[in-house]
Amino acid sequence: MAMDPDAVAKAFVEHYYRTFDTNRAALVSLYQETSMLTFEGQKLQGPAAIAGKLGSLPFQHCEHQIVTVDCQPSGPQGGMLVFVSGSIRTAPDEHPMKFSQAFHLMPAGNSFYVQNDMFRLNYG
Amino acid sequence: MAMDPDAVAKAFVEHYYRTFDTNRAALVSLYQETSMLTFEGQKLQGPAAIAGKLGSLPFQHCEHQIVTVDCQPSGPQGGMLVFVSGSIRTAPDEHPMKFSQAFHLMPAGNSFYVQNDMFRLNYG
Repeated sequence: MAMDPDAVAKAFVEHYYRTFDTNRAALVSLYQETSMLTFEGQKLQGPAAIAGKLGSLPFQHCEHQIVTVDCQPSGPQGGMLVFVSGSIRTAPDEHPMKFSQAFHLMPAGNSFYVQNDMFRLNYG
Repeated sequence: MAMDPDAVAKAFVEHYYRTFDTNRAALVSLYQETSMLTFEGQKLQGPAAIAGKLGSLPFQHCEHQIVTVDCQPSGPQGGMLVFVSGSIRTAPDEHPMKFSQAFHLMPAGNSFYVQNDMFRLNYG
């Protein structure tokens, strides 16, 4: 069955941010040992370090709102680049902050893992 | 000589936006036939289509200001992901607009070409 890259990207993005907002610790399963996260300029590698960073962010509640999702195949190895913009609200009474995030997904069996992840707030 | 990825990314970003702001047509040389650009959701492929799109943007003057540059190696083929945030001003008396852009650079001899390019304005 041919895969529609835009549908895969949309499904990944929905899964990623729903998991982030409801069960952040479960994001660990999306990363492998070679995976890299650059979060606001801080570089981390591997599932333990990446999940540790995401788990230590100084808020409990959060809500992502996605505005755009773009995707492109990244090369002959079946990878896919996913580029997201949106906003995040870290407390019900706070203003949302804009962010953008780029993922490089690589195939793993019938699914994908996150090989590269770069996150930035876009200060207003 | 070992290459410092952050230095390569910074040099690429300076070159790309300086060229964009001073001689936009010359950006064509950074793309190859397999290269893809997604510009505000519009998908283009190959140097002619990409340079055509960039050349047809409805402003002559423009000025990019770069705020952040992140980079990560993209895999065993020597590629590099470069993730940029900043602002663009398309006329001297206009307010700058925020943007973010993700590039996937692939090695080509002693240099790199842009395999993937995704651009989005981050509306305020």
